[in-house]
Order: sequence, then C-alpha cells, then structure tokens
Amino acid sequence: MVSSIVKPIVINSDRLLKSIEDLAKIGHLSDGGVCRIAFTPEDLAARNLIQSWMIETGMSVRIDTAGNMIGTYQGKYPQASTLSTGSHIDTVPNGGRYDGAYGVLAGIEVVRVLHEADIRLNHSIEVIVFADEESTMIGSKAMVGKIVNDPNYYTHVDGRDIQTCLEYIGGNWHKIDQARRTNQEMAAFVELHVEQGPVLESMDKKIGVVQGIVGQRRYVITVTGHSSHAGSTPMNMRSDALVAASLIILAVNRIGNTPGQQVATVGKMQVSPNAPNVIPGIVEMSLDIRDLSNEHLDHLMAELIQEIEAIATRTQTQIKLEPCLRNEPAPAASNIQQTIAKICEDFGFSYTYLPSRASHDAQEMANLTDMGMIFVPSIAGISHAQTEYTSPEQCVEGANVLLHTFLRLDQHYSIL
Amino acid sequence: MVSSIVKPIVINSDRLLKSIEDLAKIGHLSDGGVCRIAFTPEDLAARNLIQSWMIETGMSVRIDTAGNMIGTYQGKYPQASTLSTGSHIDTVPNGGRYDGAYGVLAGIEVVRVLHEADIRLNHSIEVIVFADEESTMIGSKAMVGKIVNDPNYYTHVDGRDIQTCLEYIGGNWHKIDQARRTNQEMAAFVELHVEQGPVLESMDKKIGVVQGIVGQRRYVITVTGHSSHAGSTPMNMRSDALVAASLIILAVNRIGNTPGQQVATVGKMQVSPNAPNVIPGIVEMSLDIRDLSNEHLDHLMAELIQEIEAIATRTQTQIKLEPCLRNEPAPAASNIQQTIAKICEDFGFSYTYLPSRASHDAQEMANLTDMGMIFVPSIAGISHAQTEYTSPEQCVEGANVLLHTFLRLDQHYSIL
Repeated sequence: MVSSIVKPIVINSDRLLKSIEDLAKIGHLSDGGVCRIAFTPEDLAARNLIQSWMIETGMSVRIDTAGNMIGTYQGKYPQASTLSTGSHIDTVPNGGRYDGAYGVLAGIEVVRVLHEADIRLNHSIEVIVFADEESTMIGSKAMVGKIVNDPNYYTHVDGRDIQTCLEYIGGNWHKIDQARRTNQEMAAFVELHVEQGPVLESMDKKIGVVQGIVGQRRYVITVTGHSSHAGSTPMNMRSDALVAASLIILAVNRIGNTPGQQVATVGKMQVSPNAPNVIPGIVEMSLDIRDLSNEHLDHLMAELIQEIEAIATRTQTQIKLEPCLRNEPAPAASNIQQTIAKICEDFGFSYTYLPSRASHDAQEMANLTDMGMIFVPSIAGISHAQTEYTSPEQCVEGANVLLHTFLRLDQHYSIL
Repeated sequence: MVSSIVKPIVINSDRLLKSIEDLAKIGHLSDGGVCRIAFTPEDLAARNLIQSWMIETGMSVRIDTAGNMIGTYQGKYPQASTLSTGSHIDTVPNGGRYDGAYGVLAGIEVVRVLHEADIRLNHSIEVIVFADEESTMIGSKAMVGKIVNDPNYYTHVDGRDIQTCLEYIGGNWHKIDQARRTNQEMAAFVELHVEQGPVLESMDKKIGVVQGIVGQRRYVITVTGHSSHAGSTPMNMRSDALVAASLIILAVNRIGNTPGQQVATVGKMQVSPNAPNVIPGIVEMSLDIRDLSNEHLDHLMAELIQEIEAIATRTQTQIKLEPCLRNEPAPAASNIQQTIAKICEDFGFSYTYLPSRASHDAQEMANLTDMGMIFVPSIAGISHAQTEYTSPEQCVEGANVLLHTFLRLDQHYSIL
C-alpha cells in the first residue's frame, strides 16, 4: 500500500521523456517516423547511445554472442538470480518512437532512480536490448536456445550474412549457443511495451496487465471449384469457389466472435481466374487464429474444420487446409500479473487484464523464466507507423509501474 | 406435320460436316483449336472461301460498308422482305470450330438443299457473315444503327484503325451508316448456334428453343472497412471489408438462386492490403447479373441493394455500387419459338426452352426484326477453347431444324 504520508519513490518524468526524444533522433524520418533497422548504422548508433547511458547509470554492460546488450545494476546479493527487463530498439522500416524503445528506456530510468537514491535491490537488475526483434528475434531466441541451425535462415534483407550482422554489433554466430541463459540465472523477466492495439484506449484504462502472449496458428486454405462462363452456366450447375470461400470467411468470423479472447482473420485472398464474367475456379486464402490457450485453439480449429467439411459438401468444392506457421502461447506468470495489478490499485491507475496478440521478446523469455508484461495505451491502436503515439503522462505511468514491480518482485523472489 | 409417307426434305449431312472440316483448316492451331481473329489474313481467307461457296450455291453476294458479307438466295417475290440467318466466322484467339462458323455453314447448307431441289421460297433467304462478332460486334451493330461515333473505340487489338480493318474485308468506315437495315427489308432473323453452356447436355435435349438473349448488367462494388492488425485488434472492434464482401457474395448467390432464370456472379475480387496478418481494409469486386426481363432485373437489384445496405450497417463498412455495363434483354419472337418447337416435335427431337446467356449477333438483330435462335448442345458446356465440341449428329439435327424453320416462316410471313 502506498502510504498517504510517505511519498513513494517515482521515476523522473522529464529525464524519461528526454531520453525518448533523444533516442528518436537516431533514424528520424522526415514524416516523424523512425527507421532503425537491426544491424544498420542507425541501430549501432542507438546501441552505443544506450550503452553510454547504462554506464553513466552505474551499470556494467556486456554484449552476448547473439548481439543482445545486457546492462546489469548489481544487487546486494550478486550470486542471486537477476530481475530482468528490456525490449528492443530496432524498428520496422517506417516505425514509431515507442515500440520497443520505450521499454528499454523505462528500464534504464528505473535503474537511474535507484542509482540516484543509492538503492540496491537484493537481486541484480538487468536491462536487455534484444537483437533484431522486428525481423528474426534472434536475440531472445538465442537466449532461450531456439536458434535455427542454418545461417541462411537469418540472412539480412540487405543481403548480408548473419555472422557479418552479428559481428557488426559485437556478437558472434559461431558461438551463438553461449548466449543461452538458464532459469537459475534469471528469476523473472518483465517487459514494458506500448499495446499496439486499441483495447486500453477504448476501455479508458491506463495500464494493461498482460495475461500472456497468444499462440498463433496460420494456415493456407485452398478452395477448388469449377471455373466456367458466368453467363451460360445456370446457378444450379455451378461449383463456385468464391461462394465456398465466402462461407468459410463467415465461419472464421463466427468462430472468432464466440465467447473467448481469440481472434481469427482471413487477411489474404487470391481468386482465379479473377474475371467478371468467369465463375471463380480456385480461391486461395490465409487463416490466422490466435488465443492464449492451445486447448481453446484446438477446440476452435476442430469446430472450423467441421464447418469447412460441411461447406465443401454443400458447395460441391474441394477444400484443403494446410498449416504454415505455429507459435505456442506464452502465459504470463500469475504472481507477476497480481503484482502489477496490485501496484495499479495502490497508485490509483485504472487497469485491465488482456492478452498480448502481437509478438514480443517476452514470449521467448517465458520459455526460460517467470514472464510478465505491462502495457500502456497506443492512441487509436496504431503501431508500426509514424503516427504511433503514447502520451508523456502514459509513458511516465507505465515506467512507475515497472519500477514498483521490480521493488515488489525483489521481495517475492528468494535470493538463494 | 412430317408425313410418315412423304419423306421430309433434309440437309446433306456429309456436305455440311465436310464444310465444317474445311473451314476449320483456316487458322487451325496445333492443339486442335482455331485462331481466326477478325480482320486478319485468316479471317479474310475464310470469308473468301465462304463467298465462293455462296456463289456456287446460286447466291448473289455483297459486302456492306460494315464488312458484313450477305449472300442472297432469291425468292419468288424479290420485293418481299427477306428471311435471314447467319452468324460469324471470326474466333477468339484460341477458339473452337463450331462457335459462329456452324451457324453460317448450316445456313449455306440450307440454301444448297433448296438450290439442289430447285426450290425457291416466297421470300429471299439471306445468309449473313457478321463482321467481328468476338470483339466489337461492329457488323450487327451497324446493321441496326448502333455504331459509336468514335473510330478510336474500334481500334483493333493489333493497333490498326477501324477504317484500315474494314477496307481490308471490303467495308468502309466513312459510309458505315449505309449498312443500316430496316424491318421492311427483313421479315425475320434466325441464328443457329452451339449453346456454349451445359444446359442441353445435362437435360439430354437435342435442341434448345431460345427464349431470348438475356440482358446483362455489370457493377463494381467497393467495400471500405478499416485495415488494422489481425493480432491486436479484438473481434468486436473490427470493420473487416472482407467479411462484408463475403456477406455480399452470399446475398448475390442467394438472389441468383431465387426462382427464375437469372444468373448472378461475383467473378473478380481484389483485397487490400492483402496480407495474412492485416484485417482487409478495402475489397473491390465485380457483380454480373443477367436475365431475360428488365423488370425482373430491376426487382432483383432492388432486393440486393437493400441487402447491401443492411450489410453495410451490420459490418460498419461503407459499400459503393457503381454500374459499368448494361446490355438490354433481346426477347425472341414468340412465333419463331413456337415454330422451332413444332418442328422438333414433328422430327421427334427432344427440346427445351432456354435463354441465351451469352451474346450473339442475334441480340442486335432483335432491334430490327423478329428474332429467333436455335441451340445445339456443347459437350460439357465448353466453348472458346479447342475442346469445344458438338457431335456430327447434333450438327445435322440443328441444321435440319433451321431448314424447316425457314420453310415454315416462309408461310408465316406475308409477301406484301
């Protein structure tokens, strides 16, 4: 409980906001966006700035073989496992200034406040800048031992091989296994991030307590009917692939709208031969379905497959469903969720529990240790665009929740 | 009534089939198809062959300013209006040997039989080879005075201007108005054609009595929703243009399947941005709807527009429907339909009434005079392909129906 007499320790708003401003200058685009693609000069310049800030803040800094930059603010018990935070400072080609960068800078600000007040926690605090979150997630994946054993898989969009890229930021592909961490070393990982969706704003909540990062399954659905003349083929002699595809899209949408937190989307579609006077013979489309629970996803997909079989019979088409991507759900640790919620109550910050339906380094870290995420609102849900925006007040509120989460988790986790 | 004692006059099967074979050699493709595009050397060679056959058959031949070749087999009363038939001998780039050519050759065979038996009808018989049916239909449109007053509209796909094209086959763009005919000159026009659809074959009927050529209306439908992240946008906060489009496609299909002879098709669709992890923001699609009755089309479109408005509200999208093509229905004359049906009964040929849902020169001729069409089956409904096929027996049956239709219409129409 935050006492009404003793003022709680809080972060320095101006310092946090200025560091967001300063970092956004690196890779700044004329339209207000930021382009700081991993392994480019902008990425390197930003990493060097972050490193200098970490060092100024009393942290020791190392770069692991996967190119992750890890700043450590030593605790009273250096042998104890760490409390870790962090995110990424690389961006998509036309990104904003908050996605990723905000989490790293708030982590540094948490340490600045403690350092300034000469406070050491029992556990060491780590602030991690993960390598290449926006593309391969090689940094967080290496940390949990999920590297694909084929360097070509990681070839940069500009053509450079992964060893060249990693060396550029201080890593080493040939020793990437050394980046792997154990759960003895890390007690918990908490990532602060902008929501990148409209939920918090629409509910008028300041803080999102993330329940976990959803599992994602992606499929290619191919509907094969019979292409024929749209004039001379009577309605009752048609096998129209687009009519069948429409029934599937509505089934997907209906399943998405059943009770639960799942989302289900058909986003891509190709009609063939695609002419106004020809009945479509083939439709190929994507299906993307996400939920926190694998059991729930299994259940929804079984229901959908049953519907698709009925549609194939009814429309006299053949329908094929092929999986093409599967990410497992990453649930957040319940003690971390409860801690974040309790801090919101103490500060009087409105909050809601919600899943993260976008990917984050935290989803990999959940393979290793107790994971939590704190969300702050994204105005209009916009992200990966120059109009991405979270207000200064919201940035400060999120950072204060992160600070107090660390203070409480420091008590929660044993130092043995 | 065909007497069981007096054998009815019939066409010469071998001669008809040989003329189909011979004409198919001009523009013959190695895959068995025919490429005889209007205004090309193949078209001209085929026209010259047809002209020689017409002359051999006792017909006078003229080419009008629109490039139509008109063979006349003079009747007993040369001042009386004509009974006309015909079709086209140009093809699509990879066409078959029956579409169009069959109707012209059967018309010539009808005259050959009469000429051979030294029979003259009261009315003169015309066999018309219409110019460029597969593209502009300039021949039949000129005959009914529906020429667009802009030569650029008729520029050939190979870049030649219309005057060059028409001159090549004996026409004259500058005098194209002279190709216009009056209904005093022509008592009736009957076109024999392959069905280009699967109805006759599926009903196991030998002859189709065409009720008319359907009117066609084509629209572009644009659905505008809101494009956003397929992960981070909850189901209840979406405005998914593809879900709305699917509801429209099913509404179109439902309206197509209400009682009646209409067909309604969405054949073309473009989804934007068209990525698996992005909710579709814009869908543009075609609507093609055809029926014999304008009133029925008006009624169906009013129903559809009402459904579309409800879909827009329900899905929180904006939906725009823009007309882009309209061809009026061309009903066949009821006396010609009855005549054809009666002949089928007399010959013991199974038949059915059906609309033509593809375009033909006959639809233009209906603007001028009493129009009728006779269909013979297209195997598997295939047309505009090298696999287009109508059996020899079916070709002969159709030509006999045409012959006897002329014999009866000659009695039906006054010679005044």
